[in-house]
Amino acid sequence: MPYLPFDENLPGITGILNYRPETALPIRQLTQVLLRGESTLTEAERELIATVVSNGNECRFCTAAHTAIADLLLGEKETAQKVKEDVMHAPVSDKMKCLLTIAKAVQISGKNVTPEMVAAARENGATDLEIHDTVLIAALFSLYNRLVDGFASVTPAEPAFYQRLAHILKDKGYMPSKDRYDGLKT
Amino acid sequence: MPYLPFDENLPGITGILNYRPETALPIRQLTQVLLRGESTLTEAERELIATVVSNGNECRFCTAAHTAIADLLLGEKETAQKVKEDVMHAPVSDKMKCLLTIAKAVQISGKNVTPEMVAAARENGATDLEIHDTVLIAALFSLYNRLVDGFASVTPAEPAFYQRLAHILKDKGYMPSKDRYDGLKT
Repeated sequence: MPYLPFDENLPGITGILNYRPETALPIRQLTQVLLRGESTLTEAERELIATVVSNGNECRFCTAAHTAIADLLLGEKETAQKVKEDVMHAPVSDKMKCLLTIAKAVQISGKNVTPEMVAAARENGATDLEIHDTVLIAALFSLYNRLVDGFASVTPAEPAFYQRLAHILKDKGYMPSKDRYDGLKT
Repeated sequence: MPYLPFDENLPGITGILNYRPETALPIRQLTQVLLRGESTLTEAERELIATVVSNGNECRFCTAAHTAIADLLLGEKETAQKVKEDVMHAPVSDKMKCLLTIAKAVQISGKNVTPEMVAAARENGATDLEIHDTVLIAALFSLYNRLVDGFASVTPAEPAFYQRLAHILKDKGYMPSKDRYDGLKT
């Protein structure tokens, strides 16, 4: 039972964002720029960063949602699963292993990012902007995870919910639209 | 030495936001709505929420900055200091003690917010919107603290820096302006 009177048709983060549109809009805009804006990281790579941070925070809704989007973008389910289990042995590039390592450090504390982590990312081809965006995506999901769990919002159990959500976020991105969540209602 | 080439005249969060204006703008807009927008919480009360979260994350820049703004808005330095040391014995309202307790829980994990904390806030007069904004301010500073420390940005030692910054943020708020940081340069 959520702590605030969110629309019961909108579980997880969706009802929280719907509750206060004035604060939701800049959160959505930031997410759209970071996860869907122009970048040398693929959309799937950026969703994997969101996934490892949400997984580290044990936020079930966000982990299931961003795993589903990464799976949909990649066309397979192995990569996101392996990234959650063991970044260094996951089937991603060495650059992504370094960036995911930075993201996992940020999830715990900004202070956990070391000069060695940043140097390793650069040695494996990461640009300054990619390092910037990795830290900011990790910080943004530190915010999201705290909203979802801090309000005790509803976490649907059925995988089909997250598959529907993944299709909406793949097709429409993170900005608000009037008919945005019609596909979620059952 | 920061991990990315931020403007050396802009320490702490200021150089980070200046580095990527496209992501900084929605972060600033969210902050402006939450900390300076219309609210039944005073600006000082909202700055105290930012302060306890930054203090919990041991983010020296953000703690010094928001302590200085709270001190300036309150016209005294006792309240912010006591809030950082011991919320339950600080000279704030019972409602604020409850909201600051929720903020401190969110700083660690959203899962640490309990139904009892939310019930206590309501019993002491907190509205749903005040509870919403408390959780979101705490989540936003969980983001900010991770940016400041995750990039190893510069933390000025001299208190005068934070007093100048406090005046800028009191007078101009959190939105960007061309001459925003002129007062910080020495």
